[in-house]
Amino acid sequence: METVQLPIPRSIWPLPARQTLAIEILDQRFLPHHTRVNRLETVLDCARAIRDMEVRGAPLIGITAAFGAAFAVQEAKRLEGSTHEWQTAMGHLIAQLRAARPTAVNLHWAIEQQLAYMATRQDDEKLALELFEHAIVLMDEDRETCRRIGTHGLGLMRQIAERKNGEPVNILTHCNAGSLAVVAWGTATAPIYLAHLEGLPIHVWVDETRPRNQGANLTAYELGLAGVPHTLIADNTGGHLMQQGLVDLCLVGCDRVTARGDVANKVGTYLKALSANDNGIPFYVCLPSSTIDWGIQDGLAEIPIETRSPQEVRYVRGMVNGQWQDVLICPPDTPALNIGFDVTPARLITGLITERGICQANKEGLRSLFGEMQDVDV
Amino acid sequence: METVQLPIPRSIWPLPARQTLAIEILDQRFLPHHTRVNRLETVLDCARAIRDMEVRGAPLIGITAAFGAAFAVQEAKRLEGSTHEWQTAMGHLIAQLRAARPTAVNLHWAIEQQLAYMATRQDDEKLALELFEHAIVLMDEDRETCRRIGTHGLGLMRQIAERKNGEPVNILTHCNAGSLAVVAWGTATAPIYLAHLEGLPIHVWVDETRPRNQGANLTAYELGLAGVPHTLIADNTGGHLMQQGLVDLCLVGCDRVTARGDVANKVGTYLKALSANDNGIPFYVCLPSSTIDWGIQDGLAEIPIETRSPQEVRYVRGMVNGQWQDVLICPPDTPALNIGFDVTPARLITGLITERGICQANKEGLRSLFGEMQDVDV
Repeated sequence: METVQLPIPRSIWPLPARQTLAIEILDQRFLPHHTRVNRLETVLDCARAIRDMEVRGAPLIGITAAFGAAFAVQEAKRLEGSTHEWQTAMGHLIAQLRAARPTAVNLHWAIEQQLAYMATRQDDEKLALELFEHAIVLMDEDRETCRRIGTHGLGLMRQIAERKNGEPVNILTHCNAGSLAVVAWGTATAPIYLAHLEGLPIHVWVDETRPRNQGANLTAYELGLAGVPHTLIADNTGGHLMQQGLVDLCLVGCDRVTARGDVANKVGTYLKALSANDNGIPFYVCLPSSTIDWGIQDGLAEIPIETRSPQEVRYVRGMVNGQWQDVLICPPDTPALNIGFDVTPARLITGLITERGICQANKEGLRSLFGEMQDVDV
Repeated sequence: METVQLPIPRSIWPLPARQTLAIEILDQRFLPHHTRVNRLETVLDCARAIRDMEVRGAPLIGITAAFGAAFAVQEAKRLEGSTHEWQTAMGHLIAQLRAARPTAVNLHWAIEQQLAYMATRQDDEKLALELFEHAIVLMDEDRETCRRIGTHGLGLMRQIAERKNGEPVNILTHCNAGSLAVVAWGTATAPIYLAHLEGLPIHVWVDETRPRNQGANLTAYELGLAGVPHTLIADNTGGHLMQQGLVDLCLVGCDRVTARGDVANKVGTYLKALSANDNGIPFYVCLPSSTIDWGIQDGLAEIPIETRSPQEVRYVRGMVNGQWQDVLICPPDTPALNIGFDVTPARLITGLITERGICQANKEGLRSLFGEMQDVDV
């Protein structure tokens, strides 16, 4: 299984370590029509790439930030002055990285991982390179984590496939929790890719996911490259499909999960969870455990929800005559509000699919898989 | 109240009756950026205008079809031959009109009204003109019906406004059930316009309503012209706003209501009704009684749901540099499905606002207002 390569472009990769450490990313703002690669070698490069959504997806934001932490040391060490001063400079740079986007907790998780690793190192001179190499370790772990999520989700898919007697298993997904949101495999797409590789008959309903259309731009693109049967739909359509028996399973990713199982994900996820619940359709959230915020309980009250530019609502970006264009869909002076995420309460979630297995979306469920977190003050 | 003119363009108007009877319509496909007027004088003109959505909105489709019935007589009478033959020709033309769009029942209602009126007339020579004048009567009735819907809805708005102590009443609406969907006032917008004229503080969340963006193109446009405070949002956003206490009331229109109160409306309505129900927010459907299909019970099983071109999902139409453009938002070969409507079960609807008052969304509720329908076999 692990040797199979999905025919999907990579989202992020390190460049060989030279005088200046650097990585490259696939600039996802230009997909599916152009494959543009950006080189990142400073904290500001990473913060910009995260903020402007050149990279997006909670796990990929985390990995980008992990490299950003290495760059923070690289830059701070180039400043003149005492040891105390480079550490202060690094702290300021790290703070800029943390501020890039508010909702995904993986950003903070990755920085914490790097700071903890840093505390174990002795040699200041090699520190930037060591953090860079540790970011590569985290990157490899992310790939393996997603493969494990896929394996656990595959069990569910097999059960449904058995009931369907050769008819395709219809999965609905929202936004892009795909290969492009992580290092490889995806979170919500990992079970889909494994099922497809195994030859299970499947079909994916892809929510276009306004306002930025990551479903249309990214999920339809990567499922198409991988040869997974899929159909693009407007975000409004999923409820009708569920009422008509055309959805067997919902699989989504997430940006933050609370200790009691509330889930922040791309805005509109809550509406699909309501509809799945109303129609008795299993609704699973796929996540690496780095997405769990053990320090908070109530998602609606405690997860910060990002507001983005109203221009993303007033305009839709797409391709016409080989050119990217932003077309205006309303009177130019129309007030608009662009909320990035919503919170799906744990009661609407059938289960959480993690790298350690599937659990109920509640404190007991999460503790059953992540017992070592019992000593966290939650 | 009745003398107040809303500063909103008219959707449909008759031309003075000459040798050839004709009407003009505002071609809504080019709003909000261009005001284009089309002249209709044949059944095919009307069928095309309905099918291609030059006119849309269940009541306006009905009025257009009522004029179409007059044109059917005009055209059939121009054919040579016996009385029997012109009636056959007219029947064929009427069938084309009926086939223009499947979901809105008002189309059939208006044709039935015209056929019933025709049966009362004696003079074949004057028949086309008489049906044309009767269509004008139906048009005037539609305007008055919407004003009455507005008056009943206004009562609800006043109650909420009292509770809110000067804070704006936040209304969420989906698609365009506005002035442009009818002859004047709108259905869902009628209470909004009356509240605004009365000086109640209100604010409207406008769902953009993919795939055709009638919320962005039409509702934002007409609320803007009328000076009603509003904010455009992606269709995914309403659930979050409801969870956060930012919606006091949902008001939507509809395309068909069954005798037990199930409602077909623009796809995505069901998702908003689920969310309103989950958050204890009143969800009202506004309708003229011509939208009630007394002959059917179970909306999910019995209302035909229109499927439109997948191109409307793959492409988004908007304005760039003064030109209309359709921009591609996915890989060009992506399969897509375009479902036009969904059915909101009666259990999720707080009430139906009709021209005769507000009732519960069930058989007893509808019968309490429309007692004369008790002899219909339902």
